[in-house]
Amino acid sequence: MFKAFEWNEEKVKYIDQTKLPLEEVIIETNDYRVICEDIKRLALRGAPLIGISAAFGVYLGANEYSSLSAKDFERQFYIICNQLVSTRPTAQNLFWAIDKMKVVYEENKNQEREIVLKSLFDEAINIFNDDIKTSDQIGIFGNELIPLKATIITHCNAGLLVAGGIGTALSLIYKAKESGKKIKVFSDETRPLLQGSRLTAWELMKNGIDVTVITDNTAAFLMQKEKIDLAIVGADRITCNGDVANKIGTYSLAISCQRHNVPFYVAAPLSTFDFKLKTGSEIPIEERNPEEVVNFFGKRTAPLGVKVFSPAFDVTPSDLITGIITEKGIIKKPFEDPIKSLPEKLL
Amino acid sequence: MFKAFEWNEEKVKYIDQTKLPLEEVIIETNDYRVICEDIKRLALRGAPLIGISAAFGVYLGANEYSSLSAKDFERQFYIICNQLVSTRPTAQNLFWAIDKMKVVYEENKNQEREIVLKSLFDEAINIFNDDIKTSDQIGIFGNELIPLKATIITHCNAGLLVAGGIGTALSLIYKAKESGKKIKVFSDETRPLLQGSRLTAWELMKNGIDVTVITDNTAAFLMQKEKIDLAIVGADRITCNGDVANKIGTYSLAISCQRHNVPFYVAAPLSTFDFKLKTGSEIPIEERNPEEVVNFFGKRTAPLGVKVFSPAFDVTPSDLITGIITEKGIIKKPFEDPIKSLPEKLL
Repeated sequence: MFKAFEWNEEKVKYIDQTKLPLEEVIIETNDYRVICEDIKRLALRGAPLIGISAAFGVYLGANEYSSLSAKDFERQFYIICNQLVSTRPTAQNLFWAIDKMKVVYEENKNQEREIVLKSLFDEAINIFNDDIKTSDQIGIFGNELIPLKATIITHCNAGLLVAGGIGTALSLIYKAKESGKKIKVFSDETRPLLQGSRLTAWELMKNGIDVTVITDNTAAFLMQKEKIDLAIVGADRITCNGDVANKIGTYSLAISCQRHNVPFYVAAPLSTFDFKLKTGSEIPIEERNPEEVVNFFGKRTAPLGVKVFSPAFDVTPSDLITGIITEKGIIKKPFEDPIKSLPEKLL
Repeated sequence: MFKAFEWNEEKVKYIDQTKLPLEEVIIETNDYRVICEDIKRLALRGAPLIGISAAFGVYLGANEYSSLSAKDFERQFYIICNQLVSTRPTAQNLFWAIDKMKVVYEENKNQEREIVLKSLFDEAINIFNDDIKTSDQIGIFGNELIPLKATIITHCNAGLLVAGGIGTALSLIYKAKESGKKIKVFSDETRPLLQGSRLTAWELMKNGIDVTVITDNTAAFLMQKEKIDLAIVGADRITCNGDVANKIGTYSLAISCQRHNVPFYVAAPLSTFDFKLKTGSEIPIEERNPEEVVNFFGKRTAPLGVKVFSPAFDVTPSDLITGIITEKGIIKKPFEDPIKSLPEKLL
């Protein structure tokens, strides 16, 4: 299967997701600044992949400054972490991965520099490899929810382009297909940046899955016609009560699912849970550049000077969510208690 | 105020709505075939305007064949009517206007040809002038529903670009502004053809109304943040039970309004009611060319060969609708009885 991200000869190697589906441009770099920039401009995107690439960014940055004195090295280490942390505000996996790298640094900082670097490298590789297993586990657990013949709707892109492995939401679809089920997918195009039509359609077609692109506006129409069996999406952050931040439009989809009694599932690794936040209202929501809405890949689609409001994410309250699929199993309502017990499973 | 449509020296004159907001191209024609084509390609669009332009199309077509024998003229008259009727399948006003032209023809067909033509012309002018008054009346009635300070969300374009006058949904906004109310509008961009960002934003800005463009996905986000006081949309067809066909995405918006207790109003002239249909499930829904979704104004946004499903309209069931604003007053739930009494108001 295609790999969205690889580690190869002291460099990270990844596909530029802004160029898909028309061009498959591969970026190779050992410069953490390029990683920062590529996370910001969404060449690297999706909560798990942001975490993985940020972890490698920390290692590559540390490696670059390996000849500094202990004090300067530490200063530089934290500058690099801060630069990576500030690339995007919503995805929890970013903070989780950087925190893990900091813990490893603090545990090893009094060792020889080479050992410090090796421990950082090992942790980045661990985060990467764990994510591959995590994707698989999410897919295996989630597949239990999918009937032998199912039409599934998804929003944005939460597949092999967002993870070390086969993704979160789409991992269920890949596992279902692998296990011989008859699967049909409707992919919301996902305005403004069209991750659904550009990325989800691209990766599902590449892997032989029957996919149809629709405008986000068409989801409720299909549910009204009883064409959808279940909805499955990824997540950027999940709070203690089960509220889910995900790509803008997820909330509308969940509201439509509720009206039509369509089960609405979220698939995410434990690293997406923010155990510090009680509810979704505390999640900071990134606002994106208005040009992404009114300048459509170079084509102006609104009057010059018009005001635009473009939040990148919304929060789906837990009451609309049927279940959350993690690598440790499926969490069902009420979410509070099972989520409370998750941190110990992370140990 | 800007006029989207005019009659001038034996020609119809209208703005090419596919070119907005970047270019203001005016089309002048006396050829009913051009009108047919321009309705199909959405240069002329919006339920009331489709009706008006089709009525002039019937007159212009009849005029073109005025020298034929009675029998051939009649044959040609009905061919022209059929060509106009078959341009688009959903907007009721199209059928209503052509039916009115047919009635006038049948009443006058035994008169001299000049009288037949004059009666057809007079009827087209009547339909046009009535629509100007209708827009005004809808705005005046609807304005009663708008608080002194209000933030209104709308979908697609139902303003002065769809009517002889100031439109249906947007006529409320124009009247509210005129009466000194403080109005802020969020305009859903309205995928796939972006009538909200291209047309609604354009005409509201042109008329000094505070408008902000959002992706359709952002509507529910704003309601969750309690930023929306009411929603108002136009309609392409309304059935006897109060179900409303309108631009795809209207249904999603209405579902979100229900969740957030945001009043959801429909504004439409009586010519939009189809008294032959009991419920919305009987309304034929136009499917548009997939290229409109994946080829975004010349820019490819999905993998080549991907399947696309693109219905142009959806049906909002009457349970989600707070009220329907017509030129004769506001209809509230339960809709059946007031709608039943409408045909006599049309006499």
